[in-house]
Amino acid sequence: MKETEQKTVSRATLGRIPVYLQYLRSCAAENPTVSAASIARALGLGDVQVRKDLASVSGAGKPKIGYETAELIKRLESFLCLSRPNRAVIAGAGKLGRALLDYDGFNDYGLEIAAAFDIDPEKFGATGSGKRVYPMDRLCEFCRQQQIRIGIITVPQQAAQQVCDAMLEGGVTAIWDFAPGMVTVPEGVSLQRENLALSLAHLSMLISNN
Amino acid sequence: MKETEQKTVSRATLGRIPVYLQYLRSCAAENPTVSAASIARALGLGDVQVRKDLASVSGAGKPKIGYETAELIKRLESFLCLSRPNRAVIAGAGKLGRALLDYDGFNDYGLEIAAAFDIDPEKFGATGSGKRVYPMDRLCEFCRQQQIRIGIITVPQQAAQQVCDAMLEGGVTAIWDFAPGMVTVPEGVSLQRENLALSLAHLSMLISNN
Repeated sequence: MKETEQKTVSRATLGRIPVYLQYLRSCAAENPTVSAASIARALGLGDVQVRKDLASVSGAGKPKIGYETAELIKRLESFLCLSRPNRAVIAGAGKLGRALLDYDGFNDYGLEIAAAFDIDPEKFGATGSGKRVYPMDRLCEFCRQQQIRIGIITVPQQAAQQVCDAMLEGGVTAIWDFAPGMVTVPEGVSLQRENLALSLAHLSMLISNN
Repeated sequence: MKETEQKTVSRATLGRIPVYLQYLRSCAAENPTVSAASIARALGLGDVQVRKDLASVSGAGKPKIGYETAELIKRLESFLCLSRPNRAVIAGAGKLGRALLDYDGFNDYGLEIAAAFDIDPEKFGATGSGKRVYPMDRLCEFCRQQQIRIGIITVPQQAAQQVCDAMLEGGVTAIWDFAPGMVTVPEGVSLQRENLALSLAHLSMLISNN
């Protein structure tokens, strides 16, 4: 998702785009054109929703014809920047950091984890998937050289602000923070906090009241 | 959080309770009583917010005195069921599953991961933290015997419904699903979907528009 071509869509719409893509690719050979209605039927989604989703990413289809399947695929791929993924770094190569480093679900959204960083020399080197863990003191320089804009923080709470600052100095403008704490960022930087324990606790609270 | 004593609070309030607890424990020795205003000051939170949070979990403080610190600690601990944690199982001991299995942040919310399950015999046995991975075909029986109510799904998408069904048969009533797909549950069962790739993609979309 590069600056030049990016439109903003809701999280829900964004989540459905890889689903549309998967379906369109599976039926492109037999169906040179495809309508929002037929996509909706195949995926068990609402007609209006599919029409709205596609219009927000790719424009409206042609009356009575719908979309040219190959063209629609290209547009959705281009929306997700699948050919030129956005790259992110991870600070903290503990269990969660390594799980994210090797997680292959990011590809579907045009995202790529470039590398992870840690202070523990035992973690340096390549992981099972071939991704690399580098020394933490190279984090800032790596972000700058590789023009990384997204930083993921999975270090312990007390180290979070320091690695966050190194990322920002390296040019990162979006932080995804798994260290439940008080990382602060200047205006203009996007910060998304992820608290897995809280998510589970909240779910747990809901069942207790059933 | 057991049925008998549980009240429902917002996710935001729930997230602050461990923060209150940490502060109260740190100052209990010198402060036999504590006011909402002094907690708010110490933690950089709003006065009204702290008062509301504490009232929803523990009732109102006494005018001019506030709360007895030891009593408030006990009430917050009891709200989170710290002495008798809610237990959960994980289906899928891949990287994410094992990261969650050994994650120690759940304790703060009165949650405990009891065990994980997998089909790969190489993953059976104890992890670094002493938690165990069992064969998947024992999942249902384990849930029933241990009265587990929370199931976490980290298997690949195509296996998700099957392990979900095994959990439900074993008495689980809340599912936390990391397999981005179409797990369905009957009415009365809480289902929370977690799509880490989508979270990162959404963050990434926000920065592209700055």
